[in-house]
Amino acid sequence: MAAYELHYWPGLQGRGEFVRLALEEAGVAYRDVAKEGSEGQAAGTIAAGLGAKDIATPPYAPPFLKHGKRIIGQTAAILLYLGERHGLAPKSEAGRLWTHQVQLTIADVVTEVHDTHHPVASALYYEDQKAEARRRAEDFRQNRMRGFLAWFETILDRNPKGRGHLIGARVTYAELSLFQLVAGLTYAFPKATRRALKRTPKVAALAEAVAARPRIAAYLASERRIPFNEYGIFRRYPELDP
Amino acid sequence: MAAYELHYWPGLQGRGEFVRLALEEAGVAYRDVAKEGSEGQAAGTIAAGLGAKDIATPPYAPPFLKHGKRIIGQTAAILLYLGERHGLAPKSEAGRLWTHQVQLTIADVVTEVHDTHHPVASALYYEDQKAEARRRAEDFRQNRMRGFLAWFETILDRNPKGRGHLIGARVTYAELSLFQLVAGLTYAFPKATRRALKRTPKVAALAEAVAARPRIAAYLASERRIPFNEYGIFRRYPELDP
Repeated sequence: MAAYELHYWPGLQGRGEFVRLALEEAGVAYRDVAKEGSEGQAAGTIAAGLGAKDIATPPYAPPFLKHGKRIIGQTAAILLYLGERHGLAPKSEAGRLWTHQVQLTIADVVTEVHDTHHPVASALYYEDQKAEARRRAEDFRQNRMRGFLAWFETILDRNPKGRGHLIGARVTYAELSLFQLVAGLTYAFPKATRRALKRTPKVAALAEAVAARPRIAAYLASERRIPFNEYGIFRRYPELDP
Repeated sequence: MAAYELHYWPGLQGRGEFVRLALEEAGVAYRDVAKEGSEGQAAGTIAAGLGAKDIATPPYAPPFLKHGKRIIGQTAAILLYLGERHGLAPKSEAGRLWTHQVQLTIADVVTEVHDTHHPVASALYYEDQKAEARRRAEDFRQNRMRGFLAWFETILDRNPKGRGHLIGARVTYAELSLFQLVAGLTYAFPKATRRALKRTPKVAALAEAVAARPRIAAYLASERRIPFNEYGIFRRYPELDP
């Protein structure tokens, strides 16, 4: 089977980063189309892939993963696929489903984070929806983020098998994604996130432990890790974290 | 194994409805907690389930499904589970993953529909975010809804196996969910949806075909089907569909 090909917009971490972290932890070779040629060339490749008329199962949007003849879209579905292949999820049906359920909830948070800076329309600039963004971000910081982080803390508290792991006794793709979520929140809302993490020390410790895993640490220190910026999901606009 | 128990807030279709449609099409017995006792009693049962401290895998929010010892949250994960058990998804790994990918995209649309009336905060009343809702709904009607419906039309066009089916040659949970999405959009945005469906005739035909399936038709005609109303995801506010 050919190696994996990740197709995602160039120049930002975005949802593609959740897939990258799984591929990096799995230690498998992958082609990252976003990093081939100029950003314009990479964007052209992605757009061509989305528009290809010979695909019976076209993805709606990036990221999508090509693996041999397979084309898989939706971040959580890609991780479901990779998780089973590379030991990044439990083997039991119940364990796999629980891991996926946690991932889908992380995906919900990610969508809410996106909407803190784009509450009206993805297609409009942030500058055209700043007033709405201020209101939405306030609710996110004060209510939503705390509720989600508290839920992750509860899961860590109740995990019967592993101290320091989110699910079972080993790393899963959901754990890698939770690291990315915490890293992104810390970038986007440094003040609010610092306060929130004080109430969820196990979540904070888990994020640090993931960052210290050898393959993840090597990835984060490499040029492959695109820095957070104001094109991605997690954006630092000081007025949204006063 | 005990029968299924669906836990979802009473008095509205919401995300629970996607699970109900799958259970109804499967023809299996299920307990629908929302319909037991008064709405207050049902809401109390749901809240108690969410707050129970002896669950190692607590759902973040309803709907969640209890099946024997299992508790599964996240609509798409519940459907993944039910789909495999009741022939509501292809048997091949590629087919199951594709069905799930389509479902996750439907879930994305559902979240966007919710945010047309709650673009600032779920916890606030619609009346407290009407101005923002007007802007968001306009973008949804004019851009997002059309793009998603066009994607479903493309899938129907390209399905190599089944005329009139979304995936393969048989009904899947994603097809049931697409019916619910079309029904909900038609309720919430009758003018815009009528116009949009003219461009996607296969989507419109599929929704009608699902509604005519014997078990679905019987369900829709029964008292078990809660009417659309302004507590659910799909709400009719005329100012959002001018």
